[in-house]
Amino acid sequence: MGLRHVDMFALAADLVVFALEDTRLKILLIRRGNSPFKGHWALPGGFLEKGETLEQCAERELAEETGIELRHLKPLGTFSKPGRDPRGDVISVAYMALVRTDGLTVTAGSDAREAAWVPMDKLPKLAFDHAKIIDTARTRLTDDLYQSQAVFSLLPDSFTLAEAQSVFEQIIGEPLDKRNFRSWLHKEGILQETGEERRGAHRPAKLYSLEEGGL
Amino acid sequence: MGLRHVDMFALAADLVVFALEDTRLKILLIRRGNSPFKGHWALPGGFLEKGETLEQCAERELAEETGIELRHLKPLGTFSKPGRDPRGDVISVAYMALVRTDGLTVTAGSDAREAAWVPMDKLPKLAFDHAKIIDTARTRLTDDLYQSQAVFSLLPDSFTLAEAQSVFEQIIGEPLDKRNFRSWLHKEGILQETGEERRGAHRPAKLYSLEEGGL
Repeated sequence: MGLRHVDMFALAADLVVFALEDTRLKILLIRRGNSPFKGHWALPGGFLEKGETLEQCAERELAEETGIELRHLKPLGTFSKPGRDPRGDVISVAYMALVRTDGLTVTAGSDAREAAWVPMDKLPKLAFDHAKIIDTARTRLTDDLYQSQAVFSLLPDSFTLAEAQSVFEQIIGEPLDKRNFRSWLHKEGILQETGEERRGAHRPAKLYSLEEGGL
Repeated sequence: MGLRHVDMFALAADLVVFALEDTRLKILLIRRGNSPFKGHWALPGGFLEKGETLEQCAERELAEETGIELRHLKPLGTFSKPGRDPRGDVISVAYMALVRTDGLTVTAGSDAREAAWVPMDKLPKLAFDHAKIIDTARTRLTDDLYQSQAVFSLLPDSFTLAEAQSVFEQIIGEPLDKRNFRSWLHKEGILQETGEERRGAHRPAKLYSLEEGGL
């Protein structure tokens, strides 16, 4: 009743971590310190070790390679196309997260020579099938955009409607109609006015926060 | 740059296939022909082989063990708790599907001694962590219930509102208010009247079908 005649595989947990930095949608990438793809950019991640779950592996690898500690990663999917890794049979189990960069310090470590927030619209060529994994994450984000409050976890506690619209636009990759977007927000009852305003180069803009229990 | 020092695992694809049979919500189970858990009920599934993807493995195992051929399985998640399989390090990647039983013939084969549709509310004790996998599938189904049309793929082309409500109730495991349920259906514009009625022991009931492009 053993596993003697069963094919064995290595498993890797890979992470797509989204954040807004300077109002731009970015992804956390590392530059690989080891072959294959040495020196290339890739998603943070690494091999599952005996005695841990895939979720624990994902959290451990993220902390080791980027210095960022996250919990409650969202499962994204498995990537098992034969030949996806030149080293042999490696199945990737991918997770995603949406975070705020304030208070997060990125520090490269372990197999990562460098770690950085890279703008979604300026992604370099990536190792393995990581471009495909990011594409899947972006599709998931788009699919959930109007059905979940998750995307607002990218924004600070209070934000302007223009900032909220900008996040949506960067995720779907095209401009939205301002009036329709605001009327949708209003209909869903997701946001509430904080009573504060932001003053800058333009005329003052009202600040909003997430309504408790909305959507 | 090989995988010499990397821990290796067996991978299994397991399937949670839901269907309505005689208006009852059921799951497709097999009775195991081999140890461990020989003679116990379990989800259909089996080991990933080199050269195939996890999706292909899931489709192959389902066909081998139950005679049912399905495409477009929905990824459910990974189950990687150490010790979940007495044979050693086996990671399960689970998929789910919602099907109609008409035209489907279940035929046990391969490692399955028996294959059958088992009512959700009469599940036997299951092998491995398969009860937990089913629980996860049911939670997913519940979470998506009001946001996707997927659940209607359990129903025939035309159905009564009472039949639709019964499916919802069996998934969430509790009764719904008839008036609220119908008003939600109406508001969403998911269904259209077919113009036909079903006549039976009770007064005739209007038949409905899915509105194209609703929800």
